[in-house]
Amino acid sequence: MSKINPENMTCPLPLSDYPYVTMAHGSGGRMMQQLIDKMFCAIFTDVQPNDCAIVNIPQEHIAMTTDSFVVNPLFFPGGNIGSLAINGTVNDLAMGGARAKYISASFILEEGLAMETLWQVVQAMGYAAEVAGVAIVTGDTKVVERGKGDGIYINTTGIGVLEHKHTIAPNKVKAGDVVILSGDIGRHGIAVMAGREGLSLSGAVKSDCAPLAEPVLDMLQAGIAPHCLRDATRGGVAAVLNEIATAAQLQINISETAIPVNEAVRGACEILGLDPLHIANEGCFIAFVAAKDQNKALQIMQKHNQQAVVIGTVIGTATSGNDGMVILETPIGGTRILDMPVGEILPRIC
Amino acid sequence: MSKINPENMTCPLPLSDYPYVTMAHGSGGRMMQQLIDKMFCAIFTDVQPNDCAIVNIPQEHIAMTTDSFVVNPLFFPGGNIGSLAINGTVNDLAMGGARAKYISASFILEEGLAMETLWQVVQAMGYAAEVAGVAIVTGDTKVVERGKGDGIYINTTGIGVLEHKHTIAPNKVKAGDVVILSGDIGRHGIAVMAGREGLSLSGAVKSDCAPLAEPVLDMLQAGIAPHCLRDATRGGVAAVLNEIATAAQLQINISETAIPVNEAVRGACEILGLDPLHIANEGCFIAFVAAKDQNKALQIMQKHNQQAVVIGTVIGTATSGNDGMVILETPIGGTRILDMPVGEILPRIC
Repeated sequence: MSKINPENMTCPLPLSDYPYVTMAHGSGGRMMQQLIDKMFCAIFTDVQPNDCAIVNIPQEHIAMTTDSFVVNPLFFPGGNIGSLAINGTVNDLAMGGARAKYISASFILEEGLAMETLWQVVQAMGYAAEVAGVAIVTGDTKVVERGKGDGIYINTTGIGVLEHKHTIAPNKVKAGDVVILSGDIGRHGIAVMAGREGLSLSGAVKSDCAPLAEPVLDMLQAGIAPHCLRDATRGGVAAVLNEIATAAQLQINISETAIPVNEAVRGACEILGLDPLHIANEGCFIAFVAAKDQNKALQIMQKHNQQAVVIGTVIGTATSGNDGMVILETPIGGTRILDMPVGEILPRIC
Repeated sequence: MSKINPENMTCPLPLSDYPYVTMAHGSGGRMMQQLIDKMFCAIFTDVQPNDCAIVNIPQEHIAMTTDSFVVNPLFFPGGNIGSLAINGTVNDLAMGGARAKYISASFILEEGLAMETLWQVVQAMGYAAEVAGVAIVTGDTKVVERGKGDGIYINTTGIGVLEHKHTIAPNKVKAGDVVILSGDIGRHGIAVMAGREGLSLSGAVKSDCAPLAEPVLDMLQAGIAPHCLRDATRGGVAAVLNEIATAAQLQINISETAIPVNEAVRGACEILGLDPLHIANEGCFIAFVAAKDQNKALQIMQKHNQQAVVIGTVIGTATSGNDGMVILETPIGGTRILDMPVGEILPRIC
């Protein structure tokens, strides 16, 4: 059973004394110490008391990743900035083929933030870290004046270990590789936008925010060496496919009909004039694997998410003449170029 | 010669196209990619192209630290948020006895920020990293709407290696230890405040912002095992001494007259009613060493900063009866308790 049960815990900081974050909570004095000791350390039980944590990594090659989270609103169907901040970093490590081990958590709080809000976020982080098997070992807290932030911004930086010798990177993608998508797309972006704009959609859309390490580590353990892995966050599936096509200088052919999109997401996209392929996900990734590994990889990915599916293939230079492009086979049997999203689609989605 | 000479370089991003940061620069699309490729990667040449960097750490024990920087103003006499973000994290690692190796850089930019300002900060980071011998290997960029940030916030998270077996921590401090201060205090806080409030002080005060790894690594190499090291940032020397006295449950006696404070800092503190002991530093640390190591440690610290000086001693339980307290011997021969700063002294100093 989890140590952390957000429904059962009350904030150990005396909320009656300080119901809101004040500038003094970021000034290095006694009030900051109290916030850290009473609230953060109650949940982040692996945090070391010094400015610098000493951790143990037996492997020589480690993975490192960082992300700042500025999602608006802080709470959305299926998650909040806290669960997002942990899963996002765990997932970036997983996409590097690494098992997340240690994470840092750094907060930029806006003066006037309700302490109870922070407490809920901190608990969500603790819970997500526990589920993902990662230890939050060090942190930092800053407070900015009202109107110089937006409640809570969080940076998480993660260290992971590599338990294999493969290089997993865009330039390892080869002609003939198959493209496997881990599940249905578009839920995170739509859930956040619905939360922000107060849209009521036909059928609730929950963010897919979740850790993705297990299918990846299972694949590696089964002897599959994926050529490239990428979670389809900002810019969605379209951005990921374009980045990889460009880096590999190959063409990627994708079957639009193969891509699972749930009805509520599809409906919201139609109303809003958005392409689900451009919408951010937080629990969905794309794997490029050799054709020989297709069945085994798909089977493993489907064990974790039944909707995992082959969506396309990589085409070599000689055949295509379209290096660096993503070609979408449309439902009506035509093709179109799936371009990189250019500008702002949904700001502050993560 | 340095690769990076801020005076000579022009921003490789076509500033005429995008003189200001827009929301699109944070949306995961082509404009974000351009910002990363053309500006960040021009300076951060060690950044790896994936979301996750793979780095090499032969040692089993590593140090990890994180800090978010929200200093206001972004530029102050003696540095800017960029140099501060690198040195701050290098110094936290040094205080753990670790040699900084890899750093992540994560930006939260406010819509409307002048691209030229970002370029100057990025160059300062690159230069500071080069001086400190640390590689910036991974990063992240987010953009928030106008009025939801304050120009630039930066998180840096660092990984360092431990080239020794000593535990350096507050609870290792022992009765009889001597307290050595690495240089004069109060310059960073006063420089930032003067920059913010447009104060003109008698005599320019420059921030002491600088990397502190060398004196620490020199001490360790000379066979000295400092019991505790701490840079006197937020809350100043007073906060550091109080934290350590509390953790060690010992009394620390400090001679106020021994503490070097330059005239301009002292004058500014008098006018503003501040205690220099509460003012933040960014290039100044306190070392607790065994009495037998005093001369050797002082000599090494003075090689790096002539003002390094013994400022006090640690007193055991039996003698003092004042466990966890810091007692200041004042210039007029009396004593007073040096307390932990309670609330807000100088907000957004780092």
